[in-house]
Parts: sequence; C-alpha cells; structure tokens
Amino acid sequence: MTQPNPAKKLQDFGKELVEQVHKGSQLKIDIPVRALSNVQYNEKTKTLQLGNKSAERLFFNVGHVKKFVQTLEVAKVSKQLLDLAKHASLRDVFYMAKRTLPGTNTNLVDEQTETDKAIEDLELVTEFSREQLNINANKNGSVAGRVIVEDKGDTIDWSKLGSGGWSVPSNVEEITFSKVSAKYVLYMEKAAVWERLHEDRFWDKHDCIIMCSQGQTTRGIRRLLQRLNSEHKLPVYVLADFDPWGFYIYSVLKFGSINLAHISESLALPEAKFLGITADDIEKYGLHKHLIKFKDVDSTRIKQLADYDWFKKNKAWQRQFQMMKSFGAKAEIQALSSRGITFISEKYLPEKIKEKAWLD
Amino acid sequence: MTQPNPAKKLQDFGKELVEQVHKGSQLKIDIPVRALSNVQYNEKTKTLQLGNKSAERLFFNVGHVKKFVQTLEVAKVSKQLLDLAKHASLRDVFYMAKRTLPGTNTNLVDEQTETDKAIEDLELVTEFSREQLNINANKNGSVAGRVIVEDKGDTIDWSKLGSGGWSVPSNVEEITFSKVSAKYVLYMEKAAVWERLHEDRFWDKHDCIIMCSQGQTTRGIRRLLQRLNSEHKLPVYVLADFDPWGFYIYSVLKFGSINLAHISESLALPEAKFLGITADDIEKYGLHKHLIKFKDVDSTRIKQLADYDWFKKNKAWQRQFQMMKSFGAKAEIQALSSRGITFISEKYLPEKIKEKAWLD
Repeated sequence: MTQPNPAKKLQDFGKELVEQVHKGSQLKIDIPVRALSNVQYNEKTKTLQLGNKSAERLFFNVGHVKKFVQTLEVAKVSKQLLDLAKHASLRDVFYMAKRTLPGTNTNLVDEQTETDKAIEDLELVTEFSREQLNINANKNGSVAGRVIVEDKGDTIDWSKLGSGGWSVPSNVEEITFSKVSAKYVLYMEKAAVWERLHEDRFWDKHDCIIMCSQGQTTRGIRRLLQRLNSEHKLPVYVLADFDPWGFYIYSVLKFGSINLAHISESLALPEAKFLGITADDIEKYGLHKHLIKFKDVDSTRIKQLADYDWFKKNKAWQRQFQMMKSFGAKAEIQALSSRGITFISEKYLPEKIKEKAWLD
Repeated sequence: MTQPNPAKKLQDFGKELVEQVHKGSQLKIDIPVRALSNVQYNEKTKTLQLGNKSAERLFFNVGHVKKFVQTLEVAKVSKQLLDLAKHASLRDVFYMAKRTLPGTNTNLVDEQTETDKAIEDLELVTEFSREQLNINANKNGSVAGRVIVEDKGDTIDWSKLGSGGWSVPSNVEEITFSKVSAKYVLYMEKAAVWERLHEDRFWDKHDCIIMCSQGQTTRGIRRLLQRLNSEHKLPVYVLADFDPWGFYIYSVLKFGSINLAHISESLALPEAKFLGITADDIEKYGLHKHLIKFKDVDSTRIKQLADYDWFKKNKAWQRQFQMMKSFGAKAEIQALSSRGITFISEKYLPEKIKEKAWLD
C-alpha cells in the first residue's frame, strides 16, 4: 500500500487544469453537490453519504469564476502548507487567501465562509480530508486512560497526566498508538462531567478511556474516536444531556453530518451507542423534579430529529422522542449529582454499562 | 505557617451561628457588598478591590431568609466535598442544593445563579476561593513549555506532550512545580494561535511558556498564570485580538473583574503586559486591509472601556482606544497570517518582545 499523498494529488489537480488550457477546452472542475438534496442515509453503512449529483464549475462563467478561483487559491495555500510541513487554522487560511486582485477593487474572498466552502470543495476534489490537507479547526477537549501515543517525537501516557489529562489536538492524523489497554471509550459532551469521572478515576477502575470536548464535538475528537474504534475495535459510548442538542451530538457522531457527508467514512461511528441520559433514566433514577421545561426551539428541534431518515424507522429512538415530547421537558447529565457527587461514577454508569441499557 | 484549612473555617462558621442561637440573639451573617458601588480601583496594588461596605443577612427577615439558607446550604455542600476530598462543578452544586423544603412547595434554589451567588458569598465569609472550597468552574485551555509539575501523584513534563499539550484543569491549587525553566509566559485568547506557536516550537526557541484558553479566561488558567508570576517571577504577556473584547480579556487578567473583586489578590496579574494586537501593529505590519468594521456594540463597549477607572488616566491605553475609534474598526490576531503562516512566530512576536513594544 502506498502512502496517501495529498501534495501529489494537489499537483495532479493543477496539472490537469494546465492541460485543459493547452487543449484549448473549457476550463472546468467537477464538484459533487453538497446539499441535503444530494445527501442520503445509507442503511447498509449506517452513515450519511453524498449522492452522485455533481456540478461543473466553469472558469469562463461569470457566476462560477469566483468560486473557481477561490478553490484554486485554497489549493495553493494547502500545497504551501504541505510543502512547509505546517498546519493552519480555517481562519488563517481565510487571511492567507484574502487579497485584492491586481488592478481591480475585487477581493478574492470577503468572508471566511467562502474559504471554508472552498476547502470543503477541495476535500471532494482531492478525496483528502481537510486535516490531511494540513488545515485544522479549533482544538478542544481532554482525554485520559491506559493509552500511550507517539506524537511529534514525544511519548505520551494518557494515564499519567494529573488532573488535566491530555489536551486533544485539532489534528490527530499523525498520532500513532503504541499501547491501548481499554475495553471501551466513554465520550461525554461536557468537560465538567469529564473532570468528575477523572477525579473518581473511572477509567482506571473500569478499564476504559474517557474523552470530552465541550458542546458540539470537534473534528479532532471525532477522528480520535473513529481511530480508536476502527483501529482498536473499541466500542464508543456517548454520554450527553437529555435534550434535542444532546441527541444531535450523538447523531452527528454516529451517522455523520449533512455538511460533511462527503467524509462520513473517516468521521462517522456507525456502531456508537447512546448511553444516556435517556427518558428511562429520568424514571428509574427519580430525576423528574430536575426536568427543565421545553422552550419553543426545543419542541421544533425534537420534531426535526424524529423526522430524520436515520431515526425514522428506529423504534427505540422514536419512543425516546415521544417520551421527551410528553414530558415537554429536558434534563442535564449533572442532574445525577442530586443523588450524590459520585453517583454517576459509582452507580449510574456501571449499572447502565453492565445492563447494556443503551440506545443504538 | 499553618496550612489554610477551609473545612475548619466552614465548621467555625457553623459553630458561630449555633452560638447565636444559644444566646437567643438575632441570627445573622455579615457579608461585604459585591456591587460596582463597593468596588474600587486600588492605584497602589493596581487591582480592583472590594470596599468596606457590608450588609447583615438576617434569618428572621422574609426578604433575607432565602439567601441566608442558600448560603448555609452551599456551605454544607462544600464541607461534604472537602470531607470526601472530591470536587464539584458549579452546576453540580446547584443540583446538590436543589430540593423542596419538607412540607412546602418551595425549592431551596430554582436557578443556578442563586447557588453561584451563594458560593461567591461563601468566598467572602470564609476568605477562601471557590477552588479552595472544592468547587470548580469549567476547564478549558492548553499549555506547553519547559516546566515539570506534580499533580495527583503524576509527574507531567509540559515539554513532552506532542501536539496537544497539557489540558489545564479547572483547579490548579494542588499542583506543585518541580521545574520551571522559562523567561516569560505568553498567554493568548485563541487555541488556534496556540497551535500555530506550538507547531513552530515557539516556547522551545524562545525559552517561554505558551498558554491559551478560548474566549474569556477560565479561573483555572488565571490562577495558573498568577502562580507562575508570583511563585516563579515570570512576566506574563497577553496576545489578544485588536477589539474591545480582546482588550477586556487583558483588563480582567491584569486588574481583576468587578464580579470577583473580593479575590483579586489570588487572580489578578497587575504586572501583565498587553503585547498585541495594537493599533500601532495595524500600521507597522500593514494590516489595514484586514480591519473589520465596528458594529454598534463595539462602539459602545470601547467607550465603556475608556471610561473605566483603571484605564482613565492611562495615556497609552487612551491613545489605543482613540485610534480604534478613529479606524471605526477592529482586527484579529490571525490577520498576521496574511503575511505568511509563520510570520507571527518568526517576526511579529520576537520583534515585539525584543523592542518591549507592549502596553502596560
């Protein structure tokens, strides 16, 4: 197997365009359509995937030329980064691409959304992920467990990092695992819950890895979970709030997102399980009095979730949506603390995992 | 010197109330007033400090009793945490305190703001910080440099943690430094900038520590900066956006905040310097075309900043505010990337630090 080589791919992309010029043919790039209309839920792979629709982007077309040039510009920036062996953030790439075209008043890009979209197009054209093109999003999140990784010449033992843990980088493509001793990965949406479990040495007692970001999961974390799952066959359990946003965090982790359907393969975790908080937990652990009344936006969002293709035929999930609607209320993970500060690590989690009381 | 003992302080606080009961006197707690009216800028210590106004909180007063009982309740929770040697988040404490008073329909607390305020009151009553009372806020942020710390029995070398760095915990009170080899600390508001400098091994080449959170600085980070500054005499340089929010991040770091004026002593960094981005940088490094037009909220905020006691007599800062107003625009740190991806680490920062071109 040859190593994937994004720099060569970018070069080939450029050469192909030069050839088009020499042939005197219409200068164009074929780009798959990234819109809900071209995103399907694949029941077999259990992930969101792009359909076959693609669109031609033409250089000699007033409506296309700006995006055409923007795509080339981010390709240039990415090639420079790869040649320098440096990484840039999405915001950096925006500033690196932002300039006024000579002899005009027109900027190549005016808003970061333009370079962001051009980068997503480049992912489609090259079939490499943004991270492989040396472009990163923000980092966020921590991890602990009996794992040793090699990164940038350092040997990092995730079990020996005090109360802080390892700060997960935005790009985990080049990390190598030299030891992974764990039965599963527990991913949670909240840093405060991570600190709770870490203080209780949950990962040590239960032979697992604990990982968090804050709010929506960063791509660095998603890739790290995916690598632990695919390369080390570790099941991934998700711990989130009992609300439409917590459910959606799970949805994105498991099935992928509409936006990034073109790289579901390297990001989605089709075997991830939702451990909690579920409607049944509210009943079983007496959390009724900690329910927080729905706002309009919650009601709207839960209806949207229930209607997604990947949840539509799933009875267990429809039952959850239904129960949440009938409560007309949501609840937070931390409501478990009302039962005692270590209730989550000593009772709730061990019980749920032993009974396999998760949603699939 | 005896070790500070928050558990004993809480016990004494309780005993004192019991004595009041036995004496048959009015049950009361004296609590300093935490409001702008009782916050002064101390020109000598260069920090915000609480004034002398205090208020009695009475048990036999319909207007006071709820807050009175809430303060006792969080004292109880804190005592439990200290006895168990466990830490809880602010959200956890809310759920631990939230219950219905027997025989009534009244909850002890209904909103987290109530327990948050009760905890701040407890800080005043006990003269211990929330962290010393085992109550933490959210964690966020990373650090790298030639520093070795001991934490929870682990030895952590901040120079050997790959691309991620150490994830800074919410509570750094119990960390001990076993080696600190650095000339200064560079603190930045953005994780993406931290990743830039870390990839360029800025801390290694310039013998410093690099630290970030994301947006407003967490209390864990503030305390860590403060400890490095006071215990190891390291100057702290702040790198933030050229906008009212970036300036305010610096303001809080340096002088303290109105809200937390009662613990400025353990949080403020009166000697911190603002390294950039300054209005002069915009001129010197040709960033004019990357200025972003003010919104109304920016104009309002910059006027407020200019009017704060601690900035009022500071000519250098007033000049910055004035220049920003005359631009009618702000700029981001990442605008430096338009000059090249490593411009910030190879040119901008070394030049600024060499020339001591900071604001005080």
